[in-house]
Amino acid sequence: MLQIYDKLLELPLFLGIGMDDLTHIVEATKFEFIKLRAGKTVVSENQPCEQLYFLMDGILNMETRADDNSYTMTEEMKAPAVLQPERLFGLRRHYSKSFRTKTTCGLLSIEKSELLKLLDEHFIFRLNYYNLLCTRTQRAGGMPWRRTGEQPRDKFTRFVSDRSDRPAGRKELCITMQQLANAINESRLNTSRMLHDLHAHDLIRLYRSKVIIPHLEKLVQA
Amino acid sequence: MLQIYDKLLELPLFLGIGMDDLTHIVEATKFEFIKLRAGKTVVSENQPCEQLYFLMDGILNMETRADDNSYTMTEEMKAPAVLQPERLFGLRRHYSKSFRTKTTCGLLSIEKSELLKLLDEHFIFRLNYYNLLCTRTQRAGGMPWRRTGEQPRDKFTRFVSDRSDRPAGRKELCITMQQLANAINESRLNTSRMLHDLHAHDLIRLYRSKVIIPHLEKLVQA
Repeated sequence: MLQIYDKLLELPLFLGIGMDDLTHIVEATKFEFIKLRAGKTVVSENQPCEQLYFLMDGILNMETRADDNSYTMTEEMKAPAVLQPERLFGLRRHYSKSFRTKTTCGLLSIEKSELLKLLDEHFIFRLNYYNLLCTRTQRAGGMPWRRTGEQPRDKFTRFVSDRSDRPAGRKELCITMQQLANAINESRLNTSRMLHDLHAHDLIRLYRSKVIIPHLEKLVQA
Repeated sequence: MLQIYDKLLELPLFLGIGMDDLTHIVEATKFEFIKLRAGKTVVSENQPCEQLYFLMDGILNMETRADDNSYTMTEEMKAPAVLQPERLFGLRRHYSKSFRTKTTCGLLSIEKSELLKLLDEHFIFRLNYYNLLCTRTQRAGGMPWRRTGEQPRDKFTRFVSDRSDRPAGRKELCITMQQLANAINESRLNTSRMLHDLHAHDLIRLYRSKVIIPHLEKLVQA
């Protein structure tokens, strides 16, 4: 039991909740604990968001598809984390990304009705939710105003960063050379040269219609 | 008094609040009503967000500066509206935009401590705040994934849309031709041709280091 307490306290919405409240929450809330082997789907894009999933253990692959289906990007999500908490309310109450287990994963799920009770009854929980949503809005809203470098490499790094939840870690881009060239507004030749140069410097791995960035933070700093 | 009630009910955070709750709110909450002539500053960029301002009447100019100071964009905000509600919590608790009155404006201000009380005591108010924040996060988070056109005109329209709170209305861009060309990744010549063409079609007005888009919705549809 103590282990669950410790795990919960690491999650973004439970930070700072006192032991008394936590005991009450664990007793009064319907949690579902889920254990999944690698390669299983947790959430599919466009599925209604009627619960909140917390990743307690393991690594998830989070895939986002461009609106016109021309490319996808897959990011790793490591525990502890919460899956798209901004999809519970607002205009679009369905997940916009797909989540699949990369390793064996431990997840905790809470139904929206249970979550509303937690939000109503616990000030810290509520404050954590405000902070989480506000920080996400601030980050996303600030992106267009950042400085853009003019070199193909800057534009590529920006392209990946703008589409990343986390400005570090592994990202996998499924895109053709031509589509990437269009997206970053460079010629196909310049794009190809830039990618091969990054490959030579061990900052990306290059495959047919696929670019893997093992550590985005290294690419950003390079 | 009835007039205040009607006005409040139009505001994004008060939508759907019952008459009983509203009476209680008006009696128990410290509001400040502010009337300002045209040309006055309501909020300056980087000012700590320790209150929420609601625009009840009139038009505000909302100015955002690029991180590297190379350009600014000014958008009109019409009543009823709320000024940057996502800056009350989260990592960055200061306004990121400046707000100045364009016409005589009526504003309502609520201190953060009073607002926390409203959020604690009224479920609908809280739900409205969740909805507001989630919708903003969803909109901002979805932007990078939209389709980009490849013509200079598409890129210019996208540049303005990505930086707009509202996808319609008047926007004023203070930017040199060269900075805009860099920002949208086109040559100075192509950028100039594109802007003069839009000007000829009455979709923008062109000045030295300034572009005015009278109706963004017309530019988007053109």
